[in-house]
Amino acid sequence: MERLQTHIEGFDEVLGGGVPRGSVVLVCGTPGTMKTSVTFSIMYNNVKANGSKGLFISLEEGHDHLKGAMEGLGLTGIDDLEMYILDVSKIRLEHKDEETSKNWLDILQKYIEQRVNANNFDLVAIDSLSALYSLSQMEQPRRELFHFFGFLKSLPATTFLVSEISHGTERYGTYDEDFLADGILYLKHFEAGISDVQLRLRCVKMRRAKHDKGYYRLLHEDGKGFQITRVISE
Amino acid sequence: MERLQTHIEGFDEVLGGGVPRGSVVLVCGTPGTMKTSVTFSIMYNNVKANGSKGLFISLEEGHDHLKGAMEGLGLTGIDDLEMYILDVSKIRLEHKDEETSKNWLDILQKYIEQRVNANNFDLVAIDSLSALYSLSQMEQPRRELFHFFGFLKSLPATTFLVSEISHGTERYGTYDEDFLADGILYLKHFEAGISDVQLRLRCVKMRRAKHDKGYYRLLHEDGKGFQITRVISE
Amino acid sequence: MERLQTHIEGFDEVLGGGVPRGSVVLVCGTPGTMKTSVTFSIMYNNVKANGSKGLFISLEEGHDHLKGAMEGLGLTGIDDLEMYILDVSKIRLEHKDEETSKNWLDILQKYIEQRVNANNFDLVAIDSLSALYSLSQMEQPRRELFHFFGFLKSLPATTFLVSEISHGTERYGTYDEDFLADGILYLKHFEAGISDVQLRLRCVKMRRAKHDKGYYRLLHEDGKGFQITRVISE
Amino acid sequence: MERLQTHIEGFDEVLGGGVPRGSVVLVCGTPGTMKTSVTFSIMYNNVKANGSKGLFISLEEGHDHLKGAMEGLGLTGIDDLEMYILDVSKIRLEHKDEETSKNWLDILQKYIEQRVNANNFDLVAIDSLSALYSLSQMEQPRRELFHFFGFLKSLPATTFLVSEISHGTERYGTYDEDFLADGILYLKHFEAGISDVQLRLRCVKMRRAKHDKGYYRLLHEDGKGFQITRVISE
Amino acid sequence: MERLQTHIEGFDEVLGGGVPRGSVVLVCGTPGTMKTSVTFSIMYNNVKANGSKGLFISLEEGHDHLKGAMEGLGLTGIDDLEMYILDVSKIRLEHKDEETSKNWLDILQKYIEQRVNANNFDLVAIDSLSALYSLSQMEQPRRELFHFFGFLKSLPATTFLVSEISHGTERYGTYDEDFLADGILYLKHFEAGISDVQLRLRCVKMRRAKHDKGYYRLLHEDGKGFQITRVISE
Amino acid sequence: MERLQTHIEGFDEVLGGGVPRGSVVLVCGTPGTMKTSVTFSIMYNNVKANGSKGLFISLEEGHDHLKGAMEGLGLTGIDDLEMYILDVSKIRLEHKDEETSKNWLDILQKYIEQRVNANNFDLVAIDSLSALYSLSQMEQPRRELFHFFGFLKSLPATTFLVSEISHGTERYGTYDEDFLADGILYLKHFEAGISDVQLRLRCVKMRRAKHDKGYYRLLHEDGKGFQITRVISE
Repeated sequence: MERLQTHIEGFDEVLGGGVPRGSVVLVCGTPGTMKTSVTFSIMYNNVKANGSKGLFISLEEGHDHLKGAMEGLGLTGIDDLEMYILDVSKIRLEHKDEETSKNWLDILQKYIEQRVNANNFDLVAIDSLSALYSLSQMEQPRRELFHFFGFLKSLPATTFLVSEISHGTERYGTYDEDFLADGILYLKHFEAGISDVQLRLRCVKMRRAKHDKGYYRLLHEDGKGFQITRVISE
Repeated sequence: MERLQTHIEGFDEVLGGGVPRGSVVLVCGTPGTMKTSVTFSIMYNNVKANGSKGLFISLEEGHDHLKGAMEGLGLTGIDDLEMYILDVSKIRLEHKDEETSKNWLDILQKYIEQRVNANNFDLVAIDSLSALYSLSQMEQPRRELFHFFGFLKSLPATTFLVSEISHGTERYGTYDEDFLADGILYLKHFEAGISDVQLRLRCVKMRRAKHDKGYYRLLHEDGKGFQITRVISE
Repeated sequence: MERLQTHIEGFDEVLGGGVPRGSVVLVCGTPGTMKTSVTFSIMYNNVKANGSKGLFISLEEGHDHLKGAMEGLGLTGIDDLEMYILDVSKIRLEHKDEETSKNWLDILQKYIEQRVNANNFDLVAIDSLSALYSLSQMEQPRRELFHFFGFLKSLPATTFLVSEISHGTERYGTYDEDFLADGILYLKHFEAGISDVQLRLRCVKMRRAKHDKGYYRLLHEDGKGFQITRVISE
Repeated sequence: MERLQTHIEGFDEVLGGGVPRGSVVLVCGTPGTMKTSVTFSIMYNNVKANGSKGLFISLEEGHDHLKGAMEGLGLTGIDDLEMYILDVSKIRLEHKDEETSKNWLDILQKYIEQRVNANNFDLVAIDSLSALYSLSQMEQPRRELFHFFGFLKSLPATTFLVSEISHGTERYGTYDEDFLADGILYLKHFEAGISDVQLRLRCVKMRRAKHDKGYYRLLHEDGKGFQITRVISE
Repeated sequence: MERLQTHIEGFDEVLGGGVPRGSVVLVCGTPGTMKTSVTFSIMYNNVKANGSKGLFISLEEGHDHLKGAMEGLGLTGIDDLEMYILDVSKIRLEHKDEETSKNWLDILQKYIEQRVNANNFDLVAIDSLSALYSLSQMEQPRRELFHFFGFLKSLPATTFLVSEISHGTERYGTYDEDFLADGILYLKHFEAGISDVQLRLRCVKMRRAKHDKGYYRLLHEDGKGFQITRVISE
Repeated sequence: MERLQTHIEGFDEVLGGGVPRGSVVLVCGTPGTMKTSVTFSIMYNNVKANGSKGLFISLEEGHDHLKGAMEGLGLTGIDDLEMYILDVSKIRLEHKDEETSKNWLDILQKYIEQRVNANNFDLVAIDSLSALYSLSQMEQPRRELFHFFGFLKSLPATTFLVSEISHGTERYGTYDEDFLADGILYLKHFEAGISDVQLRLRCVKMRRAKHDKGYYRLLHEDGKGFQITRVISE
């Protein structure tokens, strides 16, 4: 089976070689756990390393703002067409009145299908699911999400879905995305010792991969990018 | 009483010899706890070892995807008719519009009845109950599930029902499946020590069997399959 | 006051001599805590020891299935008329369509009244309350249950009501059965040590009896039946 | 200020001399915490010791059943008119159909008023509030209970209201009875050590009394009745 | 800035000199935490010490009952006009039928305005907010309470609002009074050691005051009144 | 990237240099955690130090009251036009009847836009979001807040939004403001040791900034203002 490397130093071994290509993967965590950054970084590094093409769909954060943030992490110097940011945020802000009259789940699905076929994107990200839900009226979420996930799985691409978890709750998703998804990467603020708060990463689930299930500390070093380390002491 | 061996090394002793044949067994756990794999593995090993015939009904995961995942666990080399995967997922994706007009609980019941009688399947699995519920409008769940479970118990087969538990909750089922079922196999992510997460297996309930109720660590070794070990230290 | 012995070795002393005859007793616990077995065993042993006559009303588990399970516990060799199992489960499965048109709370009440008078049953069990509720539309549960419990208390019999507790909750009943009942026997899965799960029994409440309120470990030994032991260490 | 002694050995000192006469006192606890027994015992001992007259209103437990239970605690040998049990339970069972057409809160209020005036009852108990609520349709509970409590406070009597707390919750009442009441006696099952469960008593609140707020162990000894002891070790 | 001393020995230092005059202060706690007594004591001691005039509005507890309780704390010997108790409880009991036809939030506001202006009350208390809410239909609580608090802040008086917290919950108010108020005094039953329950006092919030945020033990000594002490050990 | 210094001594290093200019930052905490003071202080110190111009929109606290509180913290001596307090509280109190007929979210948005453009405010604060919500009917909060946040992000200003957290809950916002915001400053009452309650500050999230995620103790010293210190022991 072909694997997509995350290029998070040390984490591909945890995954048993990387994310199985074609998977639909949730990237979930509470506010401030770098869900967007980790997702963008995985795509960026694949574009850079092996000619992948990435489509990043941002529903609430603007192109420039997002780009600026990514540059702050050293994720620069790639052609915009190779790592394309679809700024839905901008469309929404400029066409506020039309926003509600559209079925965004359908629109997005058609858009993704077209672009993946026409432009050979092999990496797709949607940031975030909650934002997408705020634009959609789902009467039977599990059923409708089954079809959306089914569509994503049918693509010749690997998909990352940013899933927001409210602080103080424990579910990995809003509806049952965590059961529908092939993989779950869980980012967690961990209160360690007297006052320290560490960012930890865990692979909760990855179908078709023999992965480690433990928690790792996630660090970012300028010039090197993300890396994980073993948790030594609390 | 006749017993169905799980072929999870060490676990049949825990069950007092295996699952009493004819039981309806819940296999429950949060995302990533290998519910599907454990269920498939039990069926596969019986097909291989003693000529059982298995019917695996997958409501959301596609045939190829599921098959690929199972091959990754070494569950290969069996005739498709002996271990038949009913890919409801595919039917749903191809006939999305007709999906809601059907009473899937009835359809599935008739299908299972027919196939068990015609093809002598003695092992049946439904993956998952939540997916089934998303396709059914149950007005009085406990009543309707009583009849569904009653039907399953009337079959000359042993049934496994995959039951999804949301992270952060503690119930074994959505409605009262855990009281209706004959057995409950509970898969749990257990946070052990500083950062380790172990997969544990417990038999919560097994009617007509004198079973151990404790937690065991569940491991998978290539070439050997699933096995349990005693929990030594945390 | 006359006492009904539970024949759970050691437990009658805990109850101060046994259950006061004529009481309505809840037997409650989460799935897998042997509520049915303990209830059946108490009735069986009284039938065997002192010529009691027991009426066991099973709303969801079939006669043969239940009988098989009880035989596995060594509860055999008694005339069916002395320990009569009313298989409501079978009636329901065979007459599914008529099920909802009946007021089962009334039907059961009339049936019990008739049989207790005609056949001199002095022990009655209903397994389970939740199943009964699934068949009844109670608009004012506490009021209607007061009258049902009032009826049971008026019988020349001791009654056991199996009450299901969902894992993760703490209430002894669904409505206020625990306040209406004369007694509460509580069965609990207790996670002891690293991985052991013990079954414990506690008498929470027993009107007209001076009982111990502590937890005891409940064990079953072939040939001897249920017995309790002091909890020594955790 | 005149005080009503509880005759629970040791507890009147905790209350700073007893319950201020004229108070409305909640006696609350989960099932099996002897709320009825403690309430009855307080009334009984006052009737016996100093010529008080008690009116005990039982909404769900029958006269004979209650009387039997109290005799088991040694509370015997008092004229029925001095310690009068109003068996509302019996009225309800015999007139089930009329039950719902009555406003029991009003009926009870008129009954109590009449009897306190005519028969000089200086002690009144209602067992229990939840049972009373099941017979009343209160649209604005706090308002209606204010008037009911106001009525009780206007009586030349001390009132005890049995308040049921579901296991697993922490509130002292269903609505805001705990704020409306003058006093709260709290009975609690306390899990001590490995398996012991003790009954503890605490005075949470007692207006116009300088009371101790701590927990005491509550014991009952034949021939001596209730007594409290200091909690020595857990 | 002018300060109102609480005359709780030791607590004015905790508040950095006392409560800033003109503040609206919540006094909150579960049942039995002496909310009324502490509030009354603060007003009483100011009336006695420096010629303040206090208006205490009691919505549920009668004048005589309240007065009796306060005398038990040694709060005696003050002219009724200097420390005026408005017994709304009595009005309600005598005019039960008219009660619901009135908008008590408006009535109270007008009454307070008139009396503060005419009689120069510089201290106002409302006991309690929950009782007030039971008499008012607030459709948009936060909005309506903003205006009520705004009115109170506009008065040339310092206001205390008794806020009831149900046992087992943690919020300081029912709606968002805790954000609207200038100050929060929090009274808490603290279970210390094996069985002791202490009353503790904490200033959670006091706008315009540099206050200590810690917990202090609150004691009452005859002849000396309330005082706080440091918590030494648990 | 240009940074806005908080002038909380020690905290700008924690933020990696300060808040990225143009960010929308939540300042959240339970009652009494100095949300308003910290927000005002950041704006004040920038006005004083580098000629910034601040617009502070107060929805519930009056101008004079707020000003008084800030002076108590030593935040004095600045021209009102440089640090302008929009007293919406006053407008509301004086025009109570018109209040509900207005769409305050729109009004505020237009007001802010106009003033930022006309008067070159580069710092904007809204105190508080909950108060704003009480004045707005949002049918699809996440959608409408996306547009409001989008507007704020489009301004040539840095925005602070005071977010109230009820005691006992853990979410950083009411709807999903914590995901929409660029940054989250979290103020927390921390119960340390036997009875001490410390105020702690944590940067949960700050897009485009490499910040420390740990907790710091927040102190205020007269003449020096706010400062943080490492947490040394509990």
